[in-house]
Amino acid sequence: MSVTIALDGMGGDHAPGIVVEGAAQALRDTPDLRFLLFGDEARLRPLLDARPDLAKACELRHTADFVAGDARPSAALRQGRNSSMRLAINAVKDGHAAAAVSAGNTGALLAMAMFVLKTLPGIDRPALATAMPTQRKPVIILDLGANVDCDADHLFQFAVMGEVVARTLHDIAKPTVGLLNVGVEEVKGDEVVRKAATMLRDSPLQIGFAGFVEGNDIAAGSVDVVVTDGFTGNVALKVAEGTVGLFAQALKDAFRSSLTSKLAYLLARPALQRLRQRFDPRRYNGAMFLGVNGVVVKSHGGTDALGFSAAVRVAANLVRQDANRRIIEEMGAVQAALEPSAQMTASEAAAS
Amino acid sequence: MSVTIALDGMGGDHAPGIVVEGAAQALRDTPDLRFLLFGDEARLRPLLDARPDLAKACELRHTADFVAGDARPSAALRQGRNSSMRLAINAVKDGHAAAAVSAGNTGALLAMAMFVLKTLPGIDRPALATAMPTQRKPVIILDLGANVDCDADHLFQFAVMGEVVARTLHDIAKPTVGLLNVGVEEVKGDEVVRKAATMLRDSPLQIGFAGFVEGNDIAAGSVDVVVTDGFTGNVALKVAEGTVGLFAQALKDAFRSSLTSKLAYLLARPALQRLRQRFDPRRYNGAMFLGVNGVVVKSHGGTDALGFSAAVRVAANLVRQDANRRIIEEMGAVQAALEPSAQMTASEAAAS
Repeated sequence: MSVTIALDGMGGDHAPGIVVEGAAQALRDTPDLRFLLFGDEARLRPLLDARPDLAKACELRHTADFVAGDARPSAALRQGRNSSMRLAINAVKDGHAAAAVSAGNTGALLAMAMFVLKTLPGIDRPALATAMPTQRKPVIILDLGANVDCDADHLFQFAVMGEVVARTLHDIAKPTVGLLNVGVEEVKGDEVVRKAATMLRDSPLQIGFAGFVEGNDIAAGSVDVVVTDGFTGNVALKVAEGTVGLFAQALKDAFRSSLTSKLAYLLARPALQRLRQRFDPRRYNGAMFLGVNGVVVKSHGGTDALGFSAAVRVAANLVRQDANRRIIEEMGAVQAALEPSAQMTASEAAAS
Repeated sequence: MSVTIALDGMGGDHAPGIVVEGAAQALRDTPDLRFLLFGDEARLRPLLDARPDLAKACELRHTADFVAGDARPSAALRQGRNSSMRLAINAVKDGHAAAAVSAGNTGALLAMAMFVLKTLPGIDRPALATAMPTQRKPVIILDLGANVDCDADHLFQFAVMGEVVARTLHDIAKPTVGLLNVGVEEVKGDEVVRKAATMLRDSPLQIGFAGFVEGNDIAAGSVDVVVTDGFTGNVALKVAEGTVGLFAQALKDAFRSSLTSKLAYLLARPALQRLRQRFDPRRYNGAMFLGVNGVVVKSHGGTDALGFSAAVRVAANLVRQDANRRIIEEMGAVQAALEPSAQMTASEAAAS
């Protein structure tokens, strides 16, 4: 099945170069991909001309406008109607593309995706989700910052969406879902997480709810999906990134500290390169905007072509696995299960 | 100046062994320490007898009662009036000891400290704080879980307390304080952090407020103090611990992956040991209960004697630096600065 991806050619610190080269790399792995590339033709055409295979699979749509990296989402929404980012999202809305990928301004992308595509039935708010490396299989974590304030309904919906992604993208038959908290006991945490836990435990869905998990469970890979509000999730992701950076720098310093340790580095290099590869953030690039009625993936703004190709692959997989249809089905099942009791309440109310 | 520390002899996974040996190690570094050791005499006496130097500096107070690791704080508060933990805190209240250290149940320790010692003038709620390693100097982070719900006043008070600790314990003349958020721009985050930021910016205190910081700033050491609510702080601390564990395990696996890499490990061992030492969680052991009217330090429950001795040192330093008096002074200055405007409002109200 051919999948067409709309690309924001001008989004990200190293656009348009990494967008075009990233698309070319993704196409090499997955030859039936097709692209709609939005952006400045004068800059994009030469890049395409240098890559004939990609040029054949890619349609270039010129626009001079783009969203600045530091633009406020509200301003981008008002003023960026002809931006490469907005046109890529419009292409999903109009059915010309099955997904949109951008390395640009996250807030603007989220605002535009929400405004143009709206949310899926049963979903109040979209969430940003990504995969992270663990001691076992990668874990899906959400929300990463789309919603700083969440109530229990939102967390419940995030759990449903995260479970679908783990099941489809990570091919896990029965994913386990944990709710991030400050302790695993039922009495821990604030009212929001406790209520969300009750909702997940009592859910008519077949979600493998594992209860509360703690911050260290993310790296341990204790569950397949970690659900939290956007404030905590954003901090957790950046703490993990910062800690990896601290450790990597300290390791580099250690190997440079003496002649013997420099020799040791040479000997250990193949093993250390495998290690670096395993944690390479580019491999995990591609944050999913779950819950919008269309597939939108955000690439890290500072990534390179390899990283951007990973984000394209995430988008293509969400499309092929029909993740959004499955989310709609799950939320529909929740609604259906709730309705009889809602009717009962209505008739009870009528009788009283 | 001799400092007397009350020790919960029965708290922690490896009590009483690590408590007694940890005290002995702390005494070796700091010979003018004195201890009041609470717990089961039948178990503690032989441990003291084997350490004559410690025995001379330590008074043993028998109690058969102790707080279980899984006891609910409310239950521990009701039923643990004669527990080793409670008696250690009582000793601070009664002036027999200048500080209490326990490796036991965190929630119970917090509840007892609050109940027995109350909070410092100007402080609504105590916070749990610890030092963490960074690419530069260690950072003080709080709250780590004492308060899952915080308002702006609480965050402001945490900032004042954290700044005092960085200034006194870490000997930083003018510490910088950052407020943890999902972005550095003023518009980011929820109302609570935005209001706390305004309070810190407008504060009459000479706090070096650096504005918002993000999760990755903790490991980067961008500021000397990171302030956040107890939910986010708890998750951040555990994510960092989990990530270090993941990385350390992967590094171990890498060195074991071939004969060459095993040889490399032997060559790099001295450098890697310095690395391990730098991040050794035992060196950073000792979470401070800031804001209670007395010095109480929580040791990690699973630590060993070296880790426990670090927690004892944290307690002794808080006492010697008179950190609580300085917190009272700072909060007093805030009150004094607020009062004129409060009076003005009152007279305005009277005039109208």
